[in-house]
Amino acid sequence: MPNAVLDLAMDLVSRPSVTPEDGGCQDLLIRRLEAIGFQVTRLPAGEVHNFWAERGARGPRLCFAGHTDVVPPGPREDWHSDPFTPTLHNGCLYGRGAADMKGSLAAMVVAAERFVALHPDHPGRLAFLITSDEEGIAVDGTRRVVEWLQAAGQSIDWCVVGEPSSEEHLGDCIKNGRRGSLNGRLTVHGIQGHIAYPEKADNPIHRSLRPLADLAARSWDQGNAHFPPTRLQFSNIHAGTGVGNVIPGSLQADFNFRFSPESTPEALQTGVEGVLDGADLRYSIDWQLSGPPFFTPPGDLVDAATQAIRAVTGREARLSTAGGTSDGRFIAQLGGQVLELGPINATIHKVNECVAAADLDQLAQIYTQIMTVLLSKTHAHSSPSHAQ
Amino acid sequence: MPNAVLDLAMDLVSRPSVTPEDGGCQDLLIRRLEAIGFQVTRLPAGEVHNFWAERGARGPRLCFAGHTDVVPPGPREDWHSDPFTPTLHNGCLYGRGAADMKGSLAAMVVAAERFVALHPDHPGRLAFLITSDEEGIAVDGTRRVVEWLQAAGQSIDWCVVGEPSSEEHLGDCIKNGRRGSLNGRLTVHGIQGHIAYPEKADNPIHRSLRPLADLAARSWDQGNAHFPPTRLQFSNIHAGTGVGNVIPGSLQADFNFRFSPESTPEALQTGVEGVLDGADLRYSIDWQLSGPPFFTPPGDLVDAATQAIRAVTGREARLSTAGGTSDGRFIAQLGGQVLELGPINATIHKVNECVAAADLDQLAQIYTQIMTVLLSKTHAHSSPSHAQ
Ligand SMILES: [Zn+2]
Ligand SMILES: [Zn+2]
Repeated sequence: MPNAVLDLAMDLVSRPSVTPEDGGCQDLLIRRLEAIGFQVTRLPAGEVHNFWAERGARGPRLCFAGHTDVVPPGPREDWHSDPFTPTLHNGCLYGRGAADMKGSLAAMVVAAERFVALHPDHPGRLAFLITSDEEGIAVDGTRRVVEWLQAAGQSIDWCVVGEPSSEEHLGDCIKNGRRGSLNGRLTVHGIQGHIAYPEKADNPIHRSLRPLADLAARSWDQGNAHFPPTRLQFSNIHAGTGVGNVIPGSLQADFNFRFSPESTPEALQTGVEGVLDGADLRYSIDWQLSGPPFFTPPGDLVDAATQAIRAVTGREARLSTAGGTSDGRFIAQLGGQVLELGPINATIHKVNECVAAADLDQLAQIYTQIMTVLLSKTHAHSSPSHAQ
Repeated sequence: MPNAVLDLAMDLVSRPSVTPEDGGCQDLLIRRLEAIGFQVTRLPAGEVHNFWAERGARGPRLCFAGHTDVVPPGPREDWHSDPFTPTLHNGCLYGRGAADMKGSLAAMVVAAERFVALHPDHPGRLAFLITSDEEGIAVDGTRRVVEWLQAAGQSIDWCVVGEPSSEEHLGDCIKNGRRGSLNGRLTVHGIQGHIAYPEKADNPIHRSLRPLADLAARSWDQGNAHFPPTRLQFSNIHAGTGVGNVIPGSLQADFNFRFSPESTPEALQTGVEGVLDGADLRYSIDWQLSGPPFFTPPGDLVDAATQAIRAVTGREARLSTAGGTSDGRFIAQLGGQVLELGPINATIHKVNECVAAADLDQLAQIYTQIMTVLLSKTHAHSSPSHAQ
């Protein structure tokens, strides 16, 4: 069945599922998984579709995780072909979600079909964690499924998230961690007044500029062998009524930390407040922890993935923790090993998103090989969570 | 006629004239001035009402200047009485424009009536320059009348602007100058990007904070005996798309200089650009000169005003150049002496604006005395513009 992955990927792309819509994608995946013996639990939350599927009753658990939702396609006229009409051109599948991540979903399911056909009585447990809320606010998606697993006392030993981790060539990069993300909304309080009488006002812009510059320039940590240094970036700064003769009464600035495991959210908060307290500001900050960092050191899972990539593509995968957040941050809370491995990410979230059909086929082979390496008797009995 | 000033002020307040409306105020003033021999030229510009009135054919010219427009009253319910129903309470006249500056207009006209009654053949020229566009954008008001005078080769030797200059007591302060006002709108150009990849973007907030702090802290001049030091104030700063995960592509900041005659607009522009050029910023600035500074050193006009205040109130007037801009900046372009002398400014532009009836009567006496001192034979023949 040489086109099995492509066929399923095209079927998924043809089902519009702009976040948090699912568009019937999960029904399709569930039918395929149930057909090969998976037990499926639907876990809807609000308007979000989620499901957990599992095959096998005991032993270490290998989970494939992904999302059926996609980002909005933008104007139709910017696309060469309709974003929800899967289109083949020069060996590539075009459509919204082709690379992020309906192609990966198709590869995972076909990989499972092939693995189960060869190993109908595999040891351990093979699972799928699928959500329709990864591209949105990510509150009612993977987070809810993880809470459900935690409540049931369940853990995941190994998890492959199908996010498009590859950069130039399929398999050239695996994400074995992600930085944490911490948001702050700072309000600096001043006193409004007429611009001709600054002595009767208290200009929050003037008060803020120097301490905000200090925050922007500050070094928070040096990172480590696996993570770049923690960085703060301002995303928004707003003060002023719009007219030119009024000193505003307050200033608001939004900033985000991408932080390495060398810093804790608490230390970053204390650091920011120390700079502001030292600057004689009246201020308030709303903090929101978007996600802690996670890191999977080399071990079973990384070895299985790099071996599979080498066997299928001949490439040596690089390990990286760069980039934005992913649902890996939630799954890592369960204490297992988590990595991200998927297609080339060059076109994701852009117009004319695409993935090479040959890459999809190789990706399925890589996933099958990971299943084969990890869900063998030997491995099952020496897995970290079961050997102790 | 003890209530003549109050009666006229009440009549003016009862004519709603939110800028640039005139509400029939100028018709009323023109009738009164024509009745005592003034030649009136209406000088409408766009939707703005202006007029120039003059009595006397030759010799030095003493002008009284003012505006019939008022700022919006704000919510009716915040006022004790209707803002356009002149209301007497505890000896004070309440209503929008009572202090800024319909009370002054009433005092000027009654002062002229009393002066003309006593000196029907006064030497020199007594004039009125009245606009309905002082509280608005001030483009089609006094500026246009001044241009009309310049085109006719006319000058003004002495000008009393009726702006409410008094602070605690009537006549305690005369404005004999005003700082200049220069506006800048700075745009700093960066490169938009995802907040997780700051190395692929160029954050204009981070680039701007330090140089803007330098601008806010910088000393521009030390002022002089008559002017406080030049100051820069930021009024608005905006960058950001509103979402928290995007580094914005540009930052905009508005600032205003209130500047003493020790700095020129050109020097201030060069200074700002020097700071920004030294900070490795890609930027553009739109400059707008709102008005140059003006200054009337002690002399004929200041002497006449301080003597008149002393004679009527017993007070010694303080000279000041503080505060915002006024139409004095345009009139000063004609090269004569300009000052501002009017009622207490504590309630202007606020709810329950008011002026004491007794102050209006004293203000008319002060204005009459200034006319008497300056438009006497002796003075007429030794005025600065005619002695040379
Ligand atoms: Zn994705
Ligand atoms: Zn005024």
